[in-house]
Amino acid sequence: MARYFEGELHELKQQLLKMAGKAERMIHLSMEAFSQRDMALAKEVPDLEFEVNRLQLDIDDRCFKLLALRQPMAHDLRFIIAAMKIIYDLERIADQAVNILQHTEKLLQFPELKPEIDLPHMADIAMTMVHDSLDSYVEEDATKAREILIRDDEVDAMKEQISRALQTYMISDPHKVQAALQLFLIARNVERIADHATNIAEDVVYMVEAKDVRHHAEDSKQ
Amino acid sequence: MARYFEGELHELKQQLLKMAGKAERMIHLSMEAFSQRDMALAKEVPDLEFEVNRLQLDIDDRCFKLLALRQPMAHDLRFIIAAMKIIYDLERIADQAVNILQHTEKLLQFPELKPEIDLPHMADIAMTMVHDSLDSYVEEDATKAREILIRDDEVDAMKEQISRALQTYMISDPHKVQAALQLFLIARNVERIADHATNIAEDVVYMVEAKDVRHHAEDSKQ
Repeated sequence: MARYFEGELHELKQQLLKMAGKAERMIHLSMEAFSQRDMALAKEVPDLEFEVNRLQLDIDDRCFKLLALRQPMAHDLRFIIAAMKIIYDLERIADQAVNILQHTEKLLQFPELKPEIDLPHMADIAMTMVHDSLDSYVEEDATKAREILIRDDEVDAMKEQISRALQTYMISDPHKVQAALQLFLIARNVERIADHATNIAEDVVYMVEAKDVRHHAEDSKQ
Repeated sequence: MARYFEGELHELKQQLLKMAGKAERMIHLSMEAFSQRDMALAKEVPDLEFEVNRLQLDIDDRCFKLLALRQPMAHDLRFIIAAMKIIYDLERIADQAVNILQHTEKLLQFPELKPEIDLPHMADIAMTMVHDSLDSYVEEDATKAREILIRDDEVDAMKEQISRALQTYMISDPHKVQAALQLFLIARNVERIADHATNIAEDVVYMVEAKDVRHHAEDSKQ
């Protein structure tokens, strides 16, 4: 049975990566539509969202069955629990991609603003964080996961800077309020994608080291 | 051992309710500070947040140990998995309360706006949803849980209405942009609290009926 169980865990990992690939593609396409001001570039997004949701239900069900039938212990148990948490974050990442697209659609109703903000760069960092967090899961690499936790602060700082710039913009010209507000919301969506990548990284540290790094539990336990 | 295990599950439920009570109190206090324009009314919030975070780690750990040592099946397994998911949402609800307070602090730097929006009423609905979702968990009442899913649409509609009103406000007077933006963000925080209550309700339906109602899985499976 042990080898069979190993195969099941491998399959679980593959399904999770399949889901992750689709969520990552959703962010990429939504940001392309945003940057190129062309909604058609993201026309795959609704189908991808549907698949992400189905995969979430499927993986959740797999995890439940593995817990019920295989009664895993220690590392395997942590691996399955981590998977259940990671797919929750992946689904939320996919939601944020959909939100970015919705805000982009509204944005395109207004003349193009050219504020001094670099949302695509911020999104690139967030996407790399998502990708690396999943790599750290696959490689069970807690060091790589910990590096992601630091990068979240960088994204938060960028979001603050962008928010301030956009507020100044809105105050300076009432005609720009509506478009600037959509940019403001997209910056928040990107920030949340980075937050979810951070959650995934925390789950990986927990899985590998059986150590909880959420809420700086490490510091206070030392 | 069966009776002992029952006691452990009961204790898990009590801890979860303790965490929920603190998260609910955080929303209540943050909204009081907002309504009364008095930050001092929410001075307990940081301590409550700390306790919520500790409880989350503690409950997560309990769940892990129950899964590892008791190897629960069927209903008990679903009960523990639901608890793990619910505490995730409770922690996010507590985060939203902290965010409401942060936006309130910024809001109080500006002269009071009196837009025609009723954020406290929207927050009351969201708080009732949180409370009822936890009742449905304690009572294992899927009917009550399903009622919450419907109320989420009401909150979403209120958020849309409030967002539109605030945009008009911002456009009409640049001096109001900054304060209106904070109100706008508080409306979004409240909406997310309702979203988390909805997640909890979905977890309860799953726990009671072993049926997944996320992403309308029910409809598509029929």
